Amino acid sequence: MQAFNLFRKPKLTLVGAGPGDPELITLKGVKALSSAKVVLYDALVHPDMLDYTSDGCLNILVGKRSGHHSYKQHEINELIVKYAYEFGSVVRLKGGDPFVFGRASEEIEYADKYGITSNVIPGLSCSTALPGLHGMPLTKRGVNESFWVVTGTTKNGKISDDFYLAARSSATVVVLMGRKKLNVVTEFYKSIGKENLPIAVIQNGSLESEKTAIGSIIDIEALVEEKKIGTPAILIIGEVVKYHSERLPIFAQHFSNN
Amino acid sequence: MQAFNLFRKPKLTLVGAGPGDPELITLKGVKALSSAKVVLYDALVHPDMLDYTSDGCLNILVGKRSGHHSYKQHEINELIVKYAYEFGSVVRLKGGDPFVFGRASEEIEYADKYGITSNVIPGLSCSTALPGLHGMPLTKRGVNESFWVVTGTTKNGKISDDFYLAARSSATVVVLMGRKKLNVVTEFYKSIGKENLPIAVIQNGSLESEKTAIGSIIDIEALVEEKKIGTPAILIIGEVVKYHSERLPIFAQHFSNN
Repeated sequence: MQAFNLFRKPKLTLVGAGPGDPELITLKGVKALSSAKVVLYDALVHPDMLDYTSDGCLNILVGKRSGHHSYKQHEINELIVKYAYEFGSVVRLKGGDPFVFGRASEEIEYADKYGITSNVIPGLSCSTALPGLHGMPLTKRGVNESFWVVTGTTKNGKISDDFYLAARSSATVVVLMGRKKLNVVTEFYKSIGKENLPIAVIQNGSLESEKTAIGSIIDIEALVEEKKIGTPAILIIGEVVKYHSERLPIFAQHFSNN
Repeated sequence: MQAFNLFRKPKLTLVGAGPGDPELITLKGVKALSSAKVVLYDALVHPDMLDYTSDGCLNILVGKRSGHHSYKQHEINELIVKYAYEFGSVVRLKGGDPFVFGRASEEIEYADKYGITSNVIPGLSCSTALPGLHGMPLTKRGVNESFWVVTGTTKNGKISDDFYLAARSSATVVVLMGRKKLNVVTEFYKSIGKENLPIAVIQNGSLESEKTAIGSIIDIEALVEEKKIGTPAILIIGEVVKYHSERLPIFAQHFSNN
């Protein structure tokens, strides 16, 4: 370890796993996994992604999953440093994109204190990928000119204050981790006279277990109830939602040309 | 062709190529390319991506590149239909994500009129991937809680009106195709007293030809001038920009563990 430390700095590579489907990771991400010695992965990462790692690779679940110890952020930070020094490099595999509500900065900053250099291989953010898989354009000429991504779950557990400004704008609004705030969201849109705005709720997007409800502000809660949509889920709100296509794959299958 | 048409609907697959680096496409995107019979690709798509297609595949550039005919949107739509009927399926390879200012909807709707079914394989949007490659979190706990993506070039050539609302918010603002509107952007931020806000300008993001300027509203134009940053470029504006890391790769190299 000492020799290692003298000649080469340990390295942290943060890899975005994308929305869930194991084929929606980048080629660069797969290459990072295939040459990894240790992978620390989140609970939302599809288990098939671990098949991209080599036989000798140490794969460690650091997220919340039943029957496993759930690590707090400071514990994950410490594991990164421990393994980076022990193995020379660590791959941190995170759901979606590491920098979109992914707390990657905290891991990079902590590693940096210990002389560990970091790089990032971006992943597909659920905020752009899931509307796409459903044929919903985030932007469409003549309909809207921007999209705004907010979190439904801030540090204090509340929806971000930015939501209230976003809802008043003409942007497509995407609320990540928004399921538990659906009531707050619909009540606010109603209060500003936007009860007919289209909205989609997607749970487990891109996986076979995906559940989707598409309606408008006024009826979405009943639909979500009926379809028993739970967490984690994202909300997509705006006129573009109505361009979704039933013909597009409702859950992503591994790509085939048939 | 007739027999084909009777038994199976022709198919259009829109694939997001990501920001530029040929390894920042998804595995599913690579698979779609490898089984494609015809690929219609944009000028911003890295030529190495065509290596993912098979030998017999017909690769057709439909974007603007010197020495080539540049197709208008309606001509691209017509080519999709022509080839979909001739070959049974067409892959449309588009820079970034097809649904983020990608005009994918227009292609899907046109194809639909001719009985062609579409599906979408999302790509990394430059709006999330390029900040990531530079170590800039789009969101960071305690700093901000959302990001807003707008276009610098609407149908009428102007920056989207949504920009003016976004600039007043606490969201990280990403302006795609924003280089030519940098002056408008900086003037507006100055007019609302945000002259010290960090801003980054990235041209040819993720490619070896990438150029980057990082500064604040007050000095960014001089930096961009000095570094001769042209189009296409994106602007990233917000406190998170200051967390960028010089240690992270300034241009993406093909991933290696060394």
